[in-house]
Amino acid sequence: MKNIFVIGAGLVAQPLIDYLVKHSTTYNWKVTVGDLNLKLASEKVKNHPNAKAIEFNVLDDEQRKTQIQQHDVVVSLLPAKLHHIPAETCLKYNSHLITASYVSKKLKQMEEAVKSKNLLFLGECGLDPGIDHMTIMSLLNQIEQKNGTLTSVRSFTGGLIAPESDTNPWNYKFTWAPRNVVLAGQGTAQYKKDNRLKFIPYHRLFKLYDEISVEGYGNFDAYANRDSLKYTTKYQLEKIPTFIRGTLRKQGFCDAWATLVQLGLTDDSFPIIGSQNLTYNQMISAFLPNVGATDKNTLKQRLQQFLNLPNDNIILDKLDWLELFDNRKIKLKNATPAQILQDLLEEKWALQPNDKDLIVMTHILEYELENRIEKLSSTLTYEGKDATDTAMSRLVGVPLAIATKLLLTDEINCRGLKIPIEPQIYKPILKELAIYGVHFTKAVKVINKITA
Amino acid sequence: MKNIFVIGAGLVAQPLIDYLVKHSTTYNWKVTVGDLNLKLASEKVKNHPNAKAIEFNVLDDEQRKTQIQQHDVVVSLLPAKLHHIPAETCLKYNSHLITASYVSKKLKQMEEAVKSKNLLFLGECGLDPGIDHMTIMSLLNQIEQKNGTLTSVRSFTGGLIAPESDTNPWNYKFTWAPRNVVLAGQGTAQYKKDNRLKFIPYHRLFKLYDEISVEGYGNFDAYANRDSLKYTTKYQLEKIPTFIRGTLRKQGFCDAWATLVQLGLTDDSFPIIGSQNLTYNQMISAFLPNVGATDKNTLKQRLQQFLNLPNDNIILDKLDWLELFDNRKIKLKNATPAQILQDLLEEKWALQPNDKDLIVMTHILEYELENRIEKLSSTLTYEGKDATDTAMSRLVGVPLAIATKLLLTDEINCRGLKIPIEPQIYKPILKELAIYGVHFTKAVKVINKITA
Repeated sequence: MKNIFVIGAGLVAQPLIDYLVKHSTTYNWKVTVGDLNLKLASEKVKNHPNAKAIEFNVLDDEQRKTQIQQHDVVVSLLPAKLHHIPAETCLKYNSHLITASYVSKKLKQMEEAVKSKNLLFLGECGLDPGIDHMTIMSLLNQIEQKNGTLTSVRSFTGGLIAPESDTNPWNYKFTWAPRNVVLAGQGTAQYKKDNRLKFIPYHRLFKLYDEISVEGYGNFDAYANRDSLKYTTKYQLEKIPTFIRGTLRKQGFCDAWATLVQLGLTDDSFPIIGSQNLTYNQMISAFLPNVGATDKNTLKQRLQQFLNLPNDNIILDKLDWLELFDNRKIKLKNATPAQILQDLLEEKWALQPNDKDLIVMTHILEYELENRIEKLSSTLTYEGKDATDTAMSRLVGVPLAIATKLLLTDEINCRGLKIPIEPQIYKPILKELAIYGVHFTKAVKVINKITA
Repeated sequence: MKNIFVIGAGLVAQPLIDYLVKHSTTYNWKVTVGDLNLKLASEKVKNHPNAKAIEFNVLDDEQRKTQIQQHDVVVSLLPAKLHHIPAETCLKYNSHLITASYVSKKLKQMEEAVKSKNLLFLGECGLDPGIDHMTIMSLLNQIEQKNGTLTSVRSFTGGLIAPESDTNPWNYKFTWAPRNVVLAGQGTAQYKKDNRLKFIPYHRLFKLYDEISVEGYGNFDAYANRDSLKYTTKYQLEKIPTFIRGTLRKQGFCDAWATLVQLGLTDDSFPIIGSQNLTYNQMISAFLPNVGATDKNTLKQRLQQFLNLPNDNIILDKLDWLELFDNRKIKLKNATPAQILQDLLEEKWALQPNDKDLIVMTHILEYELENRIEKLSSTLTYEGKDATDTAMSRLVGVPLAIATKLLLTDEINCRGLKIPIEPQIYKPILKELAIYGVHFTKAVKVINKITA
C-alpha cells in the first residue's frame, strides 16, 4: 500500500483529490488530506474509505514530521513560498514531493540532496507553470524531428472568465489567489526579442503588451512574466532570438491596470497608518500629484488630467465601476495600498456560484524549415463548470494527480529536482490530460519573414 | 573608568574617535575601536594611550559577547540593518547603545526590554537623522513659547559637493554610502500637504520635487523621504496641515535621475545573468521599449524619443557624461542593474583627495502668531576640508561623540529607546555642536497666507 499526503484543501484541491481517491482502490492507495481547516479537508474527501481528512498545520514541526514520515509522496498545494518547509521534512524522511508552483531558490538549494537521497521533487507541474512546459516541449520535439530551427517562442496563459459569465467592464473575475493578481509583475520582466535582451520595469509593464487573438474568444493583451530568460536554458534554447512567457488578460485590461500601477495603488511595501479612517476617494486623491477636492466628479477629472485622457474614456469607466472615486470607507486597518485595493477587488471581481471560468493558453512558435519560415500556433481554451468546479482547479490539480499516479506506478522513474520538461514525465501526463478535454488547436502557416 | 566601544572604522569614524580620544584623559575613558579591517581601526586611533584598535567581526557571537560585556557604551557605525545584532548583546550584558541610523523595526521591538534594564539606546543621533531632529525640536519649542500655531514644517538635507569641487554636470559626488544613494526612495513616499495625505510611488518621486534656494549655494531640488508621516507623531504634530522631510540635490539632478528610474536601471531585485558579457549601451538598449541599433548616437536618439526630449537636452548630456551610451564593458558578473549602475557611478562620482563636500540642511516652518502668519527658514551650510575630513563625517560623528560624553557624565540620564527630540538630549548637543561651526542662519518674514 502507498500513502499519499495532500497538504492544502483550498481552491484547486477538489479535482486532485477526486482523481487520487477514484484511483485509490485500483492502486491500493491511502490518501490523507491535511488543512488548517478540518471542515474544508473533510468536504473534499467525501467519506471515501481510502481517504482521511486531518487538521494540519505545516508550521507545527512535530505534526509535520509525524505526518510526512508516514507517507510515500507529499503533494503540496501550499502557497509557493512555504513549499520548502515540507520539502525539508520530505528530504529527512524520504518522501517524494510534487507541487504546481515555481521552483523557489530554497528548493533549488536542495537539488543535490534530493538526488543523493534518490527522491523525486517535481515542481511546476500544474497549469502555468506545468501544462505550458509540457506542451511547449512536445512542440519543440516535433520541430526538432523535422530539423526545424526555432527563431521565436512566445507562450501566454490567462486564468480568465468565460464569455457567458463575463459581466463587468474589466472582463475579469478572480479564479485564483487575488493577492497574486494584485501583485503580479512586480520587479522587472526579462525576455528576449530579435536577439536582444529586453528588460521592462514594473511601472512600464502593463503599458507594453502584445495583442493576441483567439478564435471564438476575441482579443487579449499579453504582458511579459518576470523571468522568461531562465527558461531559455531549461528548454535548451539558449541561442533563440525571441523568447517570452507571459500572461493573458482580456483586451483593455492592461491599459486600465497600468493606471493603478501608475498611481501607486499596488504597492504592498508600506502600511497606510489609519487606513480605516480613510475613504477610497481620499486614498486616490493622496496618490494624485495634482491637488483639489475629492468629490467623485472632481476626483475623476483630476485623475483624467493626471493620466492625460480624453473624456468618457473606457479606462475611467473601469475605475469608476470599481467605486474608486466614491466616498466609500476603507475597511482594512493600517493596510497597504495593495491590500486595500485587493479588498475592494475581491468584492467587485468575485466569481458568482454559476460563473464559468476560462483558461486560455497559447504558444506561438516560429522556425526555419528548409527554405521557408513557418509560424505555428497551438492554443488551448478550456471552460469550467461553475465557481467550484473551475477550469483552473482542474488544470492545476489533474496534472499533479496524474504525476502522482505515474510516480507511484513507476512510470516516472527519474529522480532529483525536476520540472515536467522531460518526455518521460510530460508524455504520459499529456496523454491522460486529453481525457479531461485538454486539447490544443494547432495552426501552421508559412510566413515570409520572421516577425516578433 | 568608563569603557567605550566603537564598532566600525569607516568613512564617518574619524571625527567621532578623535573627539572620544581627546576627552578620554579628562573623563578617564578607555576607547576601543573594532573593525573587520584592523589597519583601518589602527589608523583611526593613532596610538593614543587611552585607545585600542581591534579586529572585530560583529557576526562572531563569541567575540561580540566578550567585547560588549567589557564596555559601558557601544557606538555602532554599522550599516543600519545590522545594529540589532550588537543591540541584542548590549541588552544582555547591560551596555548602552548609540547609533546614527534610523531606528529599525527590530530595534523598536526591544523598546520595553531596554527600559526595564534601565539602559539608553539612542538612535538617529547623527546628521539626518540627528541634527535635523534636534534643530527642528528646538525651533518648535521656540514657536510654542510664543504661542504660535504651526501650519507647515518642511525639512530637507543633502550631502553634496562644495561649489569649488563641483566639477561634473550632475553637480554631485559620493560623500556617503553609494548603495544608499542608488537605491534612495524605493517604495512610496508619504507626507502631508494642506491637510491631505500625499503618497508618491518611487517611479514618480524624482519628477515631483520642490525647488529650494540657499544663499550662496544656488538652487536645489528637494524630493520627499519615504516616511515623513511617522515624525508627525514623534514631533507631536499630529494635526499639522503640511509636513515633509526630504533630500536635497543640486538643481537638475532629479530630472536626470528620474530617467534612470524610468528606464529601470535602479532595480536591485534581479541579477542580469551574464552581465559581464554586456556593454553599458547594450544594457540601456535592453531597457528601452523601442528597438534599434546600440551605437552611441542611435541609442541616444532612441532614449531621446522614449523620454520625449528635445535635442541637446541637459538630461541627455548628463547621461552621456556617464558613458551610458558607450560601448563600455560591464565589469560585474551576474549583477543587478542597480549594482551595475553603482559601479559606474563610483568611478564617475568619486570624491577626489582635495574635494570639499558640503552639507545643506534647511527647515522651513510656517505658523500663525496672533493675527499674522510667519515663515521661518533656518539653514545650515557646512563644508568639509578634503575627501577624508568631510563635513559628512563631522556632522554624523560629532553628535554621536557628544551624546556618548553626555551619557557617561550623567548629563543625559533618561533611559529607554530614544531619538534626540527631548530637550535634555538635544540642548547640550546643539550647544556643543556650535563649537564645531554648526550654525543655522535664521530668517523670518511675515506672509499673508500659508503657501505649501
